[in-house]
Amino acid sequence: MKKLINVPEDVVREELEGMALAHPGLIRVHHEPNFILRADAPVQGKVGIISGGGSGHEPMHGGFVGLGMLDAACPGEVFTSPTPDQMLEATRAVEGGAGVLHIVKNYTGDIMNFEMGADLAQAEGIQVESVVIDDDVAVQNSLYTAGRRGVGSTVLAEKLCGAAAEERRPLAEVAGVGRKVKEWGRSMGIALTSCTVPHVGKPTFDLPEDQMELGIGIHGEPGRTRLPLRSANEIAEMLMEPIINDLPFKAGDPVFLFVNGMGGTPLMELYVVYRKAHQFATQHGLKVVRNLIGPYITSLEMAGTSITLLKLDDDLIHLWDAPVKTPALRWGI
Amino acid sequence: MKKLINVPEDVVREELEGMALAHPGLIRVHHEPNFILRADAPVQGKVGIISGGGSGHEPMHGGFVGLGMLDAACPGEVFTSPTPDQMLEATRAVEGGAGVLHIVKNYTGDIMNFEMGADLAQAEGIQVESVVIDDDVAVQNSLYTAGRRGVGSTVLAEKLCGAAAEERRPLAEVAGVGRKVKEWGRSMGIALTSCTVPHVGKPTFDLPEDQMELGIGIHGEPGRTRLPLRSANEIAEMLMEPIINDLPFKAGDPVFLFVNGMGGTPLMELYVVYRKAHQFATQHGLKVVRNLIGPYITSLEMAGTSITLLKLDDDLIHLWDAPVKTPALRWGI
Repeated sequence: MKKLINVPEDVVREELEGMALAHPGLIRVHHEPNFILRADAPVQGKVGIISGGGSGHEPMHGGFVGLGMLDAACPGEVFTSPTPDQMLEATRAVEGGAGVLHIVKNYTGDIMNFEMGADLAQAEGIQVESVVIDDDVAVQNSLYTAGRRGVGSTVLAEKLCGAAAEERRPLAEVAGVGRKVKEWGRSMGIALTSCTVPHVGKPTFDLPEDQMELGIGIHGEPGRTRLPLRSANEIAEMLMEPIINDLPFKAGDPVFLFVNGMGGTPLMELYVVYRKAHQFATQHGLKVVRNLIGPYITSLEMAGTSITLLKLDDDLIHLWDAPVKTPALRWGI
Repeated sequence: MKKLINVPEDVVREELEGMALAHPGLIRVHHEPNFILRADAPVQGKVGIISGGGSGHEPMHGGFVGLGMLDAACPGEVFTSPTPDQMLEATRAVEGGAGVLHIVKNYTGDIMNFEMGADLAQAEGIQVESVVIDDDVAVQNSLYTAGRRGVGSTVLAEKLCGAAAEERRPLAEVAGVGRKVKEWGRSMGIALTSCTVPHVGKPTFDLPEDQMELGIGIHGEPGRTRLPLRSANEIAEMLMEPIINDLPFKAGDPVFLFVNGMGGTPLMELYVVYRKAHQFATQHGLKVVRNLIGPYITSLEMAGTSITLLKLDDDLIHLWDAPVKTPALRWGI
C-alpha cells in the first residue's frame, strides 16, 4: 500500500489536525467526537447546515465548511458512517435559533445515524430537517444502500442550501432547495482502478488492466457491469445517456454539468471528458449554464470520473453564484 | 495504459477544447499555435503575463489564466516544451502597451523557446522581460536542465506577478516580484509511483511497490535517491529539511507553505503531509502565514507530493490576498 500516511488508525485525526493548521480563519476542528465547524458558528438567526459521511471522499465534506456552504461536517472513519453523537454535537454547535438542516447521502448507516442524531437534537428542542440525496442512476440498490446511492449532487446541494441559509431563508425553504436538488440531480460514475482503504491495506476490488467498472460507487461498490476499457468519448456517452434518460427535463432547460474526478485521475483527463459531456448535453437540447470540473467527491486514489447533471432554475443559478468561502470552494469573498 | 483519453495525439487539443467549453467567460483558446488567452486580453495599460511549458502539469498553466494571474499560457505537447511561435503569438495577443513578462520554468527547451519567442517579439517593438524559476533543491542539474529545475514556486510567481500587474505596476516592478519569488522560493518533491505519458503508453520509470523516489522531477526525472517507503511524517521531514537549509530566512520570517499533489495522491494524504510540514516549519522558527494545499503543479497521474516554501514580506502577502479569477484559483471576485 503506497500512501502518504503514518499509521492507518491515525489518518482521519491527522487529516483533521492538518486542516485545522491550514485554515484557522475558516474552520475549527472538534475532536472526540470529530466534527469540522465553521469558525464563526453558530451564526445567529441563520439555519445551520450539517453534512457528513465516511472519510476518503475529500474535499467532501470538511472542505465545504465555511461561509455560504456548510456550518459543520461530521467525518467518519474511512468509508465508515459517522456516529450519532457526532451529528448531535455538531447540530448543537451550529444551532443559531433558526433550526438545522441535515444533508445526508443515501447509505444505510448514514441514514440511521443521522436520524438518531436528529432525534436526539429534536428532543433537546432544536428544529431539524433532513434531505437525503439519492442521485446515482447506476443501480437501484447496492452494497450499503436501499434505493439509489447519494453521490455528486450532494456537493451541489451543500453549496445551494448554504447560499439559501446565508440569505436567512427559513428552514423549510432551505430544505426545499435541497429537495429540489434531490429531485433534479442525476449522477453516474466509472472506475479505471480500485482504491485501497488504509486499514485494509489492499485494493477493495480487482480490476484487470484492460477493464473498467461502469456505474461504480464511491466506496468501490459494484456498478452495472465490467467492460473492456473504452475511449473517453465513449465513456462520457455511457455516463451521460442514462443520466439524461432519467433526468426530468425538457429541451432548452438550463443545467449544471459537474465532471468529478475520483481522486487518481488528473485534471487533463477530466477536461477531455467534460468536452464530450458538454457536447452530448447540447446535442440533447440541454443548455449548460454552470459547471464544475475537478476532484470534489472522491474515492481515495481511485482513477475514474463521475458526471452529475442538475436541472437549474433562476433561483438555483442565483444561489450557485452567491459568495462562498470554504477550504475547497471559494469565490466572491 | 488506463486513461480517460481518446487517442494520444488528440489529448492536448481536446483538453483545450474542453477548457474553452467550460470557461467561456474567463478564457479564449487559440489553436495552431496553441495558447489559452484571458477573455478580455489585451488589457490596455497592464503588463501582460505569459507562462507555458509541457502539458501534463494541469491546472498549471492554463488553469491560471484570468484576472489577477496570467494573460496567456502556452501548452506544449505532454512533457514537451511549447514552440517559439506559440510564445510569439501569445505575446502579441496580450501586449496592452505596458510590455510583457515571461515566467519560465528552468528546463533547457523552455528556456530556449521562450528566449526565441521573446527575441521575435522584441524585434516587433514589444518590451519583454523574463523571469526563470529554478526552485527545486533536489538536484543541481537534471535530465532536461542546466541548474535547478523550476517547480512549485512557479504557481506562486504567477499569482504574485499577476496581482502586481493588475495594480498597473510597470514591467520592471512586476518582473521584480517574480525575481523575489525566484530568490525566496524553494521546493522538493517525492514520487510514490511513476506516471505514463499518453503517446509512450508505459510508465516513465519503474518504482517497486515498496520504494519511493526522493527529489523526483515533474517529468519523472530521477531525484536524489530511491528509498524504501517511509511514513508521511518522515517524508515531510525529508522534504522540509533540505528546503529550510537552503532558504534564505531568519527566525520569525513569515512564509508561504504550499503542499502540492502530483496528480494521483488524494487530498486526505496531502493534509496529513501538511500537518507535519507546518509543525516542522514552526519548530524551525518560521511563521506560516499563507498556504495552498492541493494538486496545482502535477505530473499526470503520479502519486506523490512536493513542498514549496516561499519567504514572504508584506508586499507578497498583499499580492497573494489580491482578487484572482481563473479556472483553478479564484477568490475576491
